[in-house]
Amino acid sequence: MLHPHYSINDLGHLAVGGVDTVTLAEKYGTPLMVLDENAVRTRCRLYQSAMEKYFGAGSTIHYASKALSCKAIYRILKEEGIGVDLVSPGELYTAKAAGFDLTEASFHGNNKTDREIASAIADGIGEFMVDSFEELEAIDRIAGEMGVMQRIMLRLTPNIDAHTQKAILTGQLDSKFGTPIATGQAERLVRLALTKKNLILEGFHSHIGSQIFEYEPYIEQAKVMFEFMADMKAKTGYEAKKINLGGGFAVRYTNDQPTVDIVGNIEKIATEVDRICVSYGLRRPAILMEPGRSIVAVAGVTLYTVGTVKEIEGVRTYVSVDGGMTDNPRYALYQSRYEVLLANRAAEKKDLICTVAGRCCESGDLIGEGMALQAPVRGDILAVLVTGAYNYSMASNYNRVPRPAMVFVKDGEDRLVIRRETCEDLCRNDL
Amino acid sequence: MLHPHYSINDLGHLAVGGVDTVTLAEKYGTPLMVLDENAVRTRCRLYQSAMEKYFGAGSTIHYASKALSCKAIYRILKEEGIGVDLVSPGELYTAKAAGFDLTEASFHGNNKTDREIASAIADGIGEFMVDSFEELEAIDRIAGEMGVMQRIMLRLTPNIDAHTQKAILTGQLDSKFGTPIATGQAERLVRLALTKKNLILEGFHSHIGSQIFEYEPYIEQAKVMFEFMADMKAKTGYEAKKINLGGGFAVRYTNDQPTVDIVGNIEKIATEVDRICVSYGLRRPAILMEPGRSIVAVAGVTLYTVGTVKEIEGVRTYVSVDGGMTDNPRYALYQSRYEVLLANRAAEKKDLICTVAGRCCESGDLIGEGMALQAPVRGDILAVLVTGAYNYSMASNYNRVPRPAMVFVKDGEDRLVIRRETCEDLCRNDL
Repeated sequence: MLHPHYSINDLGHLAVGGVDTVTLAEKYGTPLMVLDENAVRTRCRLYQSAMEKYFGAGSTIHYASKALSCKAIYRILKEEGIGVDLVSPGELYTAKAAGFDLTEASFHGNNKTDREIASAIADGIGEFMVDSFEELEAIDRIAGEMGVMQRIMLRLTPNIDAHTQKAILTGQLDSKFGTPIATGQAERLVRLALTKKNLILEGFHSHIGSQIFEYEPYIEQAKVMFEFMADMKAKTGYEAKKINLGGGFAVRYTNDQPTVDIVGNIEKIATEVDRICVSYGLRRPAILMEPGRSIVAVAGVTLYTVGTVKEIEGVRTYVSVDGGMTDNPRYALYQSRYEVLLANRAAEKKDLICTVAGRCCESGDLIGEGMALQAPVRGDILAVLVTGAYNYSMASNYNRVPRPAMVFVKDGEDRLVIRRETCEDLCRNDL
Repeated sequence: MLHPHYSINDLGHLAVGGVDTVTLAEKYGTPLMVLDENAVRTRCRLYQSAMEKYFGAGSTIHYASKALSCKAIYRILKEEGIGVDLVSPGELYTAKAAGFDLTEASFHGNNKTDREIASAIADGIGEFMVDSFEELEAIDRIAGEMGVMQRIMLRLTPNIDAHTQKAILTGQLDSKFGTPIATGQAERLVRLALTKKNLILEGFHSHIGSQIFEYEPYIEQAKVMFEFMADMKAKTGYEAKKINLGGGFAVRYTNDQPTVDIVGNIEKIATEVDRICVSYGLRRPAILMEPGRSIVAVAGVTLYTVGTVKEIEGVRTYVSVDGGMTDNPRYALYQSRYEVLLANRAAEKKDLICTVAGRCCESGDLIGEGMALQAPVRGDILAVLVTGAYNYSMASNYNRVPRPAMVFVKDGEDRLVIRRETCEDLCRNDL
């Protein structure tokens, strides 16, 4: 199987975290999102221990909420002692409602309103990732009005092309995020930040993109960031206490992709970071990373019921399921690839190449094309693997399709963590 | 202005349906979706009267709900005497909750579950658009169990390439929708339908795609459909009472696009349809069309507040707003184009070419690139025009951003029709 927490049990059913997924589909209905809690915890610990071991005390990760934001995930992160990144008032609200301590959170994003800034300061937010000059001025002004000394980091763009797809590439100069180093704007932002009476500058942040399988782009990024850090030290005397390298490592979605060695990559990056710091005469700062996808993606599986199976003679077979782009828009957005199987016939040979289609009134509503699958019939349970990230979080009600329920599984037990949306829910705000 | 119901008032503000949009932004907050009720009603009447005039009594349109489904829109359609297309239990529920008579509705989609079929029959649904052999069997069986004679049409694929983009092209042979004519499968489906004791076959449906500016593809489609109708009459004696040509005409999103003459196009298609029917020796059946976008798109405007304005020196300027792909995913999905302006400075010259970016933590979260705009500052109100279709209906809570409120305007009056989502709403189903 694609990942070790997926298995086939004695009944020939797909099991996740030791729980029979066919039983889950019967108990909770479909579409159903299943997340293996241990898979999440394992990844938190892998990252956390490797960051401390190779980058030293104070180095850590923050979970990128956008991958999956719900109360249940924040409770797990709290138990694991992991901080979080938040981008919107809704993410702040959810984390807070789950009992998460916002002093362990950073407020990200390219567009924070004055009201949101004030609200986050009032909540004791750990630090702001300052995206622009305008935002720096706003945070300083509002912190001053509130009588708070606010910790900040500056989000910078290092102009790295990490060879990932355009929509999830963020380290290039031409980005809506951050302030560019290459144009001299980052230096001016640092100089301005150092004059601010209500702000404590912790260091610099950058993010070069998602789904990066190699470790080399992070080393390129580190070179740019430490060169900038050394330059600022020489010019202003300011030495950053933290460098945040953003993102996490790529996730294995399909059989032809490798599994990234998280610990090994961190070790390799750390070795280079030490060398780079020595070469610039810098004390090594605390290093941060912000994995989201690589914490939750592989933990997740989506279960659907097969509906219409339609062979267009001489062309291809369409297998329709009772969800689609409403709960997983990643194929529609990025032509993302997945592995699928029939959960109730998981041990059988995959003897069909098909297109798995969603139920929306839209041709682009597909889970994928050219997918290997056991030839299905109406009523079979179809599982899509590695759906823990950017599925539920990006879900919509297009065609007024309610969002699925989510269940966490752990050591053979299951528990509902997000209730299935109802038709009443869909009309709740309709007048 | 792009459409006649958009204007600039004495204060230099954008007005929609005679209502000052800056006042609306102050009253309801942003992001805010505004829909001009008269623009919707005008289009309903244009289509309806032209269909009756040129195609004869019984010819009509059904509104495609997927473009915008909420209680308020169904009430307007009911008042206008327009039927609707529905694809999901959520759309059925919403229409019913709005007091819409489901005998005036058809149930569409490539994947209807047995439970949904039973529920729609119980609700007295007007007709099913039968997508496949499997579905025909299921509807006949369930209608029989319920003691109902159920009206149906058969959705067929005519293998027309309408030169629109792939994601919204549905008339080709290789489609998740319908049963293909070219392979002989459609003929077998008709023969099977005629044997069914619990079904009344009304006719045939096809849909060749969205955003078609020309009328010629509809004539190509009509040729294929009437040829098939004649063929079925010759082979089985069955003569269709209705032919549904699906879709509606394209919408003018940008200044460089034409305004489609709805009435003129219908007249041209009708002339050809008459000629084709005569040539095949057919009595002209009732003709149906299913506009969704072309009923509601131009009626809509989205209002945002400008946040960070960031010039990447020598590259471009990013203007960030307080919404984005969460309320309008069409750029992220299809690189759709829009016109924008500052609602509070609408009379000023557009002196900036910029990228308008959303607030999500995603580089692809843009409203558009290369957009002409009055050079904005934080706090300005930015209006995106022609957002009535596939904006609210496709909205998500990515990054836990709440969905906007929607206001209908008419003759200088405004009324809230969808309340703004709250952070509490976002967590309602979280355990």
